Amino acid sequence: MATVVTKDRVAFADTDASGRIHFMLAMRYFEIGEREALRVLGIKAGDPSRGGYEIPRVHIECNYHHALYYDDEIDIHATCSVIKTSSLTWDIKVYCREELCISGNMVTVLLDPETHESMKVPEDWREKLLA
Amino acid sequence: MATVVTKDRVAFADTDASGRIHFMLAMRYFEIGEREALRVLGIKAGDPSRGGYEIPRVHIECNYHHALYYDDEIDIHATCSVIKTSSLTWDIKVYCREELCISGNMVTVLLDPETHESMKVPEDWREKLLA
Amino acid sequence: MATVVTKDRVAFADTDASGRIHFMLAMRYFEIGEREALRVLGIKAGDPSRGGYEIPRVHIECNYHHALYYDDEIDIHATCSVIKTSSLTWDIKVYCREELCISGNMVTVLLDPETHESMKVPEDWREKLLA
Amino acid sequence: MATVVTKDRVAFADTDASGRIHFMLAMRYFEIGEREALRVLGIKAGDPSRGGYEIPRVHIECNYHHALYYDDEIDIHATCSVIKTSSLTWDIKVYCREELCISGNMVTVLLDPETHESMKVPEDWREKLLA
Repeated sequence: MATVVTKDRVAFADTDASGRIHFMLAMRYFEIGEREALRVLGIKAGDPSRGGYEIPRVHIECNYHHALYYDDEIDIHATCSVIKTSSLTWDIKVYCREELCISGNMVTVLLDPETHESMKVPEDWREKLLA
Repeated sequence: MATVVTKDRVAFADTDASGRIHFMLAMRYFEIGEREALRVLGIKAGDPSRGGYEIPRVHIECNYHHALYYDDEIDIHATCSVIKTSSLTWDIKVYCREELCISGNMVTVLLDPETHESMKVPEDWREKLLA
Repeated sequence: MATVVTKDRVAFADTDASGRIHFMLAMRYFEIGEREALRVLGIKAGDPSRGGYEIPRVHIECNYHHALYYDDEIDIHATCSVIKTSSLTWDIKVYCREELCISGNMVTVLLDPETHESMKVPEDWREKLLA
Repeated sequence: MATVVTKDRVAFADTDASGRIHFMLAMRYFEIGEREALRVLGIKAGDPSRGGYEIPRVHIECNYHHALYYDDEIDIHATCSVIKTSSLTWDIKVYCREELCISGNMVTVLLDPETHESMKVPEDWREKLLA
């Protein structure tokens, strides 16, 4: 699929006493990148009770290349790189001032809203994700 | 009711670029203080699907007297100060090195697990909270 | 001052097992509202080492009128309602689908970047905030 | 080094609308496991202004095997598995009811408190970590 780019800013709440973004809170951008990519495709993530799909993460990997600071403007690049039977892998890259600051990937599994067991990635998602 | 005291430490994740605890994350202690006070009384807060009571907050108030820093050891004092028909007010005080750092209160409403409407505080809670 | 309105969305990371936004994480909007209002005025909040002003919160008050859910689109209204010698009070209102969901206020104190003691609100801030 | 085990509980603030712990917030346990392991060794992590060492993360990897729920009691196992010139790798395992729920590792780099450049892992850390 094409890469979807989302703009954001580093919130003060996401910094820590080192003066930089906290490593854990940088992962908000993984979720926001995926959410906006799915939105472009017309797929709603989140809780099934509100019409969204439940897509828990089973694996995450993150590299911190350059620190981010409060109020930095960032570009979150999200690309679905692997589509398996019931899982998707997202590649995430976060840029600030055209420098790659954070890169990583995240494997998500799609759950059936009724059984909460893993389900096959629907054919129309596959088409949209490969388009 | 008697005041329940819970010990904790300021996590690095809860600091911000000022070098101190983030004001928002200090409110973790409101929730932890209430949770441990309810545990002492034998009442489980949390999501109804796991056997807990749903007790959303409707009002919160917080004063910051002294800054807290990473790894500070704190005492969270929680006292149920007001019991109304379907709501409880908790007074929270956070001490560090015997100095009052944070004080405030939080009003919670008890929801019926079936209807998600407010319900009366059960008689046995009332007895336990007043004991 | 005029009210500054900032658009945002409820992140999944800010929900909890009740299915709604977590009360503590709703306070991200207090900070974001203030930040964007200050930006409009040309004032940068945050850590002094990056050219921002240190403006710790000393008091916060929050009322939860209606629950917010994942991906809800919100309008954060921020208004500086009181200007004292060295403190500002911000009124915050969060609307979703034209309904008031969260309201509150937050008192912040301005610190001198050198001494870390409270300092007078600069005359040009006062003019901008009153304009 | 020997594995250091820290006990904790899943906070309500760290759950999300799926009813389970949020993937990002599970990484609090990486930091808490490392902090308590360093404490056992007599090494203080955190901001240098408070006498701690600055040890930013450069790589993190996390696998989610079983979901964690609000108030679950957990054991965080932290082991320093690799010591390089200026970096440490921590293996983290989180157990609940004797089941492995989360596993991963985290590479941290030690910064010189003056220059903020990477510095050699001090000899006494090495000895303590290998003991």
